[in-house]
Amino acid sequence: MPGPLRLTGISASAGYAEGPLFNLEPAAARYAGKATAADEKAALEAAIGVAAGRLAGLMETADDEAAGILEFQVAMLEDDALTGPAFAAIAAGQPADAAWRQALDAEIAGYETSDQDYFRARAADMRDIRDQVLRALTEDGEIAAPAGAIFYGEDIAPTRFLETDWSSGGGIALKAGSAASHVAMLARSRGVPMVVGLGVVGLGASPAHLAGIALLDAEHGGIVLSPSKAEIDAFRRSSRSFAARRDRAETYLQKPAVTKAGTAVRVQVNIADPSDVDGIDISTCDGAGLMRTEFLFGKTLPDEETQYRAYRKVLEWAGEKPVTIRTVDAGGDKPVPGFTVEEGNPFLGLRGIRLSLARTEVFRVQIRALLRAAVHGNLKVMFPMIAVMDEYQRAAALFAEEQAGLSARGVACKMPPLGIMVEVPSVAIAPEAFSGVAFFSIGSNDLTQYVMAAARDNASVAHLNSVRHPAVLRLIASVAAFGQAQGIPVSLCGDAGGDPASIPALLEAGLRDLSVVPAQLAMAKAAIADVAF
Amino acid sequence: MPGPLRLTGISASAGYAEGPLFNLEPAAARYAGKATAADEKAALEAAIGVAAGRLAGLMETADDEAAGILEFQVAMLEDDALTGPAFAAIAAGQPADAAWRQALDAEIAGYETSDQDYFRARAADMRDIRDQVLRALTEDGEIAAPAGAIFYGEDIAPTRFLETDWSSGGGIALKAGSAASHVAMLARSRGVPMVVGLGVVGLGASPAHLAGIALLDAEHGGIVLSPSKAEIDAFRRSSRSFAARRDRAETYLQKPAVTKAGTAVRVQVNIADPSDVDGIDISTCDGAGLMRTEFLFGKTLPDEETQYRAYRKVLEWAGEKPVTIRTVDAGGDKPVPGFTVEEGNPFLGLRGIRLSLARTEVFRVQIRALLRAAVHGNLKVMFPMIAVMDEYQRAAALFAEEQAGLSARGVACKMPPLGIMVEVPSVAIAPEAFSGVAFFSIGSNDLTQYVMAAARDNASVAHLNSVRHPAVLRLIASVAAFGQAQGIPVSLCGDAGGDPASIPALLEAGLRDLSVVPAQLAMAKAAIADVAF
Repeated sequence: MPGPLRLTGISASAGYAEGPLFNLEPAAARYAGKATAADEKAALEAAIGVAAGRLAGLMETADDEAAGILEFQVAMLEDDALTGPAFAAIAAGQPADAAWRQALDAEIAGYETSDQDYFRARAADMRDIRDQVLRALTEDGEIAAPAGAIFYGEDIAPTRFLETDWSSGGGIALKAGSAASHVAMLARSRGVPMVVGLGVVGLGASPAHLAGIALLDAEHGGIVLSPSKAEIDAFRRSSRSFAARRDRAETYLQKPAVTKAGTAVRVQVNIADPSDVDGIDISTCDGAGLMRTEFLFGKTLPDEETQYRAYRKVLEWAGEKPVTIRTVDAGGDKPVPGFTVEEGNPFLGLRGIRLSLARTEVFRVQIRALLRAAVHGNLKVMFPMIAVMDEYQRAAALFAEEQAGLSARGVACKMPPLGIMVEVPSVAIAPEAFSGVAFFSIGSNDLTQYVMAAARDNASVAHLNSVRHPAVLRLIASVAAFGQAQGIPVSLCGDAGGDPASIPALLEAGLRDLSVVPAQLAMAKAAIADVAF
Repeated sequence: MPGPLRLTGISASAGYAEGPLFNLEPAAARYAGKATAADEKAALEAAIGVAAGRLAGLMETADDEAAGILEFQVAMLEDDALTGPAFAAIAAGQPADAAWRQALDAEIAGYETSDQDYFRARAADMRDIRDQVLRALTEDGEIAAPAGAIFYGEDIAPTRFLETDWSSGGGIALKAGSAASHVAMLARSRGVPMVVGLGVVGLGASPAHLAGIALLDAEHGGIVLSPSKAEIDAFRRSSRSFAARRDRAETYLQKPAVTKAGTAVRVQVNIADPSDVDGIDISTCDGAGLMRTEFLFGKTLPDEETQYRAYRKVLEWAGEKPVTIRTVDAGGDKPVPGFTVEEGNPFLGLRGIRLSLARTEVFRVQIRALLRAAVHGNLKVMFPMIAVMDEYQRAAALFAEEQAGLSARGVACKMPPLGIMVEVPSVAIAPEAFSGVAFFSIGSNDLTQYVMAAARDNASVAHLNSVRHPAVLRLIASVAAFGQAQGIPVSLCGDAGGDPASIPALLEAGLRDLSVVPAQLAMAKAAIADVAF
C-alpha cells in the first residue's frame, strides 16, 4: 500500500467527491482495415453518421447550455472543411482511422496553440468529435465507469460528461483542462466537483496509487490518492461542512441579504445570455447587475432588432428591478471575427469601449437597440474598459446623437443612466475625474489582473491573481468611499462578488451591492449573513 | 501647387529636418535570366557574396551598435536555413531573383506576423538582406538621394541608414516602422530625426505633394508636405528652438543637475550592453541606475564567467559610483529561446522575477556572477516585476544561499544591497509590505501600461499610455513619499526620466533620482535646470 499522494490543481467547480478513479484515456483503437479506398470512405462516412446521430440523441434531453455545445459539434461534423482532408487522405490510400485521426489532430493542434484562451478551451470539443468518430469506427467495447467514480485524465469530452449519470456522486480530476472549458461550465451549473491543472507528473505516478479510492476536494482544488485514515476523516468533515453550507444557503435564497448586524446588501445576478433568466426567480435577487452582450457577437455582427429583442426579454423579466447592460466587451479573451483584432497582448489592447469607439458603425447599432429597449423596464447601461473620462464623454455623446435620431423618426426610446466599469486601475486610483458618471461597477477580475500584472487565464501566474491582495482591496475601498462621498452608486460584478471567501473583505471595503452568477446566489447570501458588522 | 498636407505619426528620434522627399521603395528589379539552373545558382551565390562583402565593408567603420546589426545580417546570409529554400527553388527551375525573393518573403512574413514586438522589429533587417542581394543580382543603377533628403517609404533598411551621409541633415519618415527597430535605435544615437507610423494613406496621396519639400517634425511626430510660407516660418522657429535647446543642453553635461531653486537631482544612465559605457564619461553622470542583463540571454543561456566579466566591466568603469544591475527581465516583449514561454498575454505572464524564480537553476548562475562581480565596485542589484513581498524574500534567500556556497569554496564575493523595481501596480498601491527592501526603482514604462491597461507596444492604444496621467503620477508620488518616510532610496529608470516634457511632473511627484538613456543625459540635465522649485 503506497503512502498518500496529494496533488494540487485549480478548482473549476466547487464540491467534494470520494470514490474510485476512472481512467479517461481512450484504449488503443482496434480498427480493422478495409480492402479498398472506397470501402474506407464508406466506413468513415458511416462512423461520422453514427457519431452525429449519437450527438443528436444527447441533444434531445439536453438543456440550453448543453444543447449549444452539442450543436457546435454536430455542425463541425457536417463541415466539409473539417472532414475534407480525411477523405482526401483516404483517396490517397490511407485507412479511415489513421486518416481521420491525422486530419483531426492537425485541426486540434491549431486550437491548442491559439493565443486565445477561448479557442484553446474549444480544443476539448474537437478531441471529443475525433474520439466519437474513432469509437464508431472501432466499435470499441468500452468499459463503463463505476457509479460515483472520479474521472481522471488529460481532459474530458463534453459528451462523456453528458452521458454520465452524476446522481450518485463522482467528480472530475484533470491533468490539463481549463476552468473556461465547456465541461467546466456544465460542471458548475450541475454541481459536479471538478479540478483542473493537476499537472502531468502526478496522476501518472504509480499504479497502486491509481487503484485505490481518491478524495477530490474541488472546493480548494486538490486530490489525495491512497489517503490515510486521518485524511479520509478530515475530508469527510470538510465535505459534510460544504454540503451543510450549501443546503443552509438554499434557505437564504428567498430572503433579502443582510449581515448579522442587520446591514442590508443588494445582491443582483450576472446574465451571460437572455435564456439564463428562465431559471431565475426575480424575487430572489435585486435585479441584474451585469448583463453581458458578447453572446450576440458570434460569427456575424448582430442587427439592431436581434439586440433589441434580447435586451427587452431580460428587462421584462426583471420588471421594476434594474437591469445593467454592458456594451459589448469584445477583445481581450473574447475575440469576434470581423470585429476584434489580433494583438500580442489582447488584455492590454483594443477591447471594450476602446474597440466600440474605434468602430462606431458597430457601436451605434447597439446604442439604438439599447435606447429602444429602455422603454420596457428599468435599464442602466455601462461601458467596459473605461480608462479616461474622454472615452465616457464620447460614448455618452453617441447615445445623445442616436436618441435624437430615433426621436426625430418617432421611434419610442429613452435615455438610460450611463455608468462605467471600474476595472482599469487608472479609474480606481484617480476616480475624481469621473464624478459626472451615473454609477460605478467594479470589475474585480480585470482590475485584479492589471493591479497584479497577472493574466487571469494564465495558470503560471495564478498564485499572484488574488482579489484579496491588499492593493486590490485598497482600490475597491477607495472607489466605494468616493462613490459614497459623491452620491454615486458603486457595485461589484466580478467573480469575487459570489465567492464566500471574498465577501467579508468586500463588505469591509465598503461595498453594499454585489452581482453574482446565478449558481452562486444562495451561497453569496448565506456568506453575507455570516458577516458580523 | 497643392495645399499643405499634414500627417501625424510617432516620434522615433527627436529633431527637425527640412528638405526634398526621397522615395525608399525599390525600383522594380530588372534581372536578366540565365540559360541553365547551374547558371542561376552561380548568379545567386555571387550576389550573396557581393552583399556579404558590402556588409563587411560597412562593418569596418561601424561603431559597436551598428556592427552588431551588420554582424546579424552577415550571419543570416551565411545561414543555410535561410538560403537553402532559394537554391532548392532554382534547382526546381526558377530564376535566381524570383527564387530569392520568394524564399525571403516567406521568412519575412514569419517575422512580421510574430506576436513579439522584438521579432516584428527584426523584419526590417530581413527585408534589408533581401534587397541587398536583389540589388547585387540586378546591378540596379540606383538613383542617389540628394543631400539633406527626407527618406520616406514603408520602412528603411539598416544598411541604407549606415550608407547615408547624414552630416548635411535629412531625416526619415516611415508609413509603418517601429520605434523599437534597429534603425530607430541608430537614429536616436546619431541624432537623425525619424518619425514612424505615418499611415498607409497619407504619403501616397498626390505626386504634387511628394515633389516639393517637406517639413519633418520628429520632436512631436509629424510631417507637412507642400507647406505654406507661414508653416515654413513656424517650422524653422521650432527647429531653431530645438537646436538651441540641444546645444545649450551640451553645456549642462559636465555640471551636476540642479533645478533653478538649487535642488540637486541625481542623474544616472541606463545601460543596455556593457559596450555602452565606452562612449560615456563617468564624470557626466551619477552612476548606472539600470544595467539591463537581457543582452546576455540570446540564442543560448549565458555561463557564469561571461556574466561576471560583463558586470565587472561596467563596475570598473563606474569606479566608486553605484551600478544597479537588474536580474534578467526576460519574457514580456523580450523572449529568450529555451527560457521564456509562449503566452497569450506575455506582459501579464511569466516574466522577470517570476520566471527567474520558476527557473532557479538559471537564476543561480546569474546570482553567483553578481556576487563575484560585487567585489569590483559599488554594486546594487534589483529584481524586475516584483508583485508581492514573498517573491523578494525568495530571491534574497537564493542570494544568501549562493553567497554561503561561494564563501565555503573560498571564492571572493560580496552581498550587494537588494532592491526592487516598482512597476507592478500592487507594489506602488500598497508599498508598506516592502519596508524591508534596500531601494525602489520605479519602472515607469511597465507601471504606466498596467495602470492604463494599454500595452506599450500597441499603437492602437498609444493615446492611453501616458506617464503623465494623474493616476500614474499619483502612484509615483506615493512611492516617493513612502521611501522618504521610511528612509528607502527611490529612483526612476523608465523612458519618462529622460523626457524633458515629463521631468517637471516627476520632480513635482517628489523624485530626486532619475536614470536615463545616455543620449538623453544632456537634455535631461538641461530640463532639470529649467524646473523652478
